[in-house]
Amino acid sequence: MTLEAYIACQQKRVDQALDRVLPQESENPSTIHRAMRYSVFAGGKRVRPLLAIAAADVITPDAPGIETAACSLELIHTYSLIHDDLPALDNDDLRRGRPTCHKVFGDAMAILAGDSLLTLAFEVLSKLDAPAERRVELVRELSTASGTVGGMIGGQVNDIEGEQQTPTADLLESIHRAKTGALLRASVRMGAIYAGASSAELDALTRFGEHIGLAFQIVDDVLDVEQSSEALGKTAGKDAKQQKITFPAVYGIEKSREMAEQECTGAHRALAMFGDRSRRLSEMADFIVHRNT
Amino acid sequence: MTLEAYIACQQKRVDQALDRVLPQESENPSTIHRAMRYSVFAGGKRVRPLLAIAAADVITPDAPGIETAACSLELIHTYSLIHDDLPALDNDDLRRGRPTCHKVFGDAMAILAGDSLLTLAFEVLSKLDAPAERRVELVRELSTASGTVGGMIGGQVNDIEGEQQTPTADLLESIHRAKTGALLRASVRMGAIYAGASSAELDALTRFGEHIGLAFQIVDDVLDVEQSSEALGKTAGKDAKQQKITFPAVYGIEKSREMAEQECTGAHRALAMFGDRSRRLSEMADFIVHRNT
Repeated sequence: MTLEAYIACQQKRVDQALDRVLPQESENPSTIHRAMRYSVFAGGKRVRPLLAIAAADVITPDAPGIETAACSLELIHTYSLIHDDLPALDNDDLRRGRPTCHKVFGDAMAILAGDSLLTLAFEVLSKLDAPAERRVELVRELSTASGTVGGMIGGQVNDIEGEQQTPTADLLESIHRAKTGALLRASVRMGAIYAGASSAELDALTRFGEHIGLAFQIVDDVLDVEQSSEALGKTAGKDAKQQKITFPAVYGIEKSREMAEQECTGAHRALAMFGDRSRRLSEMADFIVHRNT
Repeated sequence: MTLEAYIACQQKRVDQALDRVLPQESENPSTIHRAMRYSVFAGGKRVRPLLAIAAADVITPDAPGIETAACSLELIHTYSLIHDDLPALDNDDLRRGRPTCHKVFGDAMAILAGDSLLTLAFEVLSKLDAPAERRVELVRELSTASGTVGGMIGGQVNDIEGEQQTPTADLLESIHRAKTGALLRASVRMGAIYAGASSAELDALTRFGEHIGLAFQIVDDVLDVEQSSEALGKTAGKDAKQQKITFPAVYGIEKSREMAEQECTGAHRALAMFGDRSRRLSEMADFIVHRNT
């Protein structure tokens, strides 16, 4: 199977699992379930669940139920997008080429839809068909990575407060290590934990996750400068307008690209101990670094 | 020990545990941790943690660490208050006698502080010093009770959508069973689960939790009509102004009071099998129904 076919196949598997874990639109109260589904099924690339599945496959190929565990990452990611887009935060009207959740359902329902997806992420993990010890480890991993201390929300706060500050390399790295890095790292780790990785295997995959997390963010920043809103499906050039601290702002485009390649190389190197077992995960790294949107 | 002294003692125990689980204000990013602590330490009565502790005491007196598990309920409750008070939802400036979180920290930080408390609640449960099977059961209980299907958010959505609808008895009960009832029921159940209740014991305590949940909401509605904003520490008379569906609106004040007493009696009856072991929990029911604020 080509990488493209593999990715399409896994995306479909994740979408089917998301459809299973999300309440139906007809379920009372219908409005909130429509808002949740609107944002979850808006055409996301499912990068985090795909990383989790590919990481799990390194340890135990085709671990049953991994796609359900992986859904929790997409639920967290989607909630964070809904809340980030709110008028009180980034005030964005466009996401993945469609009006944002609050533009369609109103601010109140968007706030509650975000809260609901966040809550559902942990409900899904608690109900997995897996040993309790493993389920609780996944809850710990996801909650820590999404939280305020070195996690997603902490990075988001630093990012907001960093606007209009002098963009230094240290500030930049600390923001992104938390804001997007923590959840991408957790994606790889959760896949590994679900599949029963040994401590040495988990360490290697964690290093892979850290490299790929940074690479992802650098590429994201570069695309925001280079691509049109139409291609990205969200408002392009927003970082510069909001004076966000980005890799291109600190290092320029060319150097940023080089850095992304270096992180990609580091990611490949972290997988050395797995040999051919990590081929797909390795390809995923290339896919993330060389994507156009 | 008198009931008042017992409650004061348990409140202090819960406050100390909350102080332990919440990141210090000095921890980066400081702003979000100040916002979280501002709202958590705003003088709440800690009704949900106290119910959890008293329920646990029925099964295993002084179960070590129960106060930490109980904190997760207060974190969820506080997040829901912060988000409810936002301009996009109830738009309230006053809570527990102080300016609401968004009045002090701004809307963006209030949204993120709510998200953070919600996330932290599950992190706390995942890290408890208890068997994994029990921890994961608590995550399942709390996430379900806080969610959209028969849980807190679902009730909140029905409540918003119920404004200006004809207030019927059925609609009223279904809203409150979810909006406040689910989390109060979960409080009792989580205490019982933490302490290792048998299936029969859990059933009895669940019935207690359902009665007390309904009684709590009826009293809350009555107090909103009868008390001043000053006494309540939040804007009084708001339900009528927003045309919320309340017990006094459907049944009148006198009948509502009687219903609260009936629920209280039902709560006491549910505890029959425990004899004197449930004395404190039984007293908590009276405290909830006969409170003035």
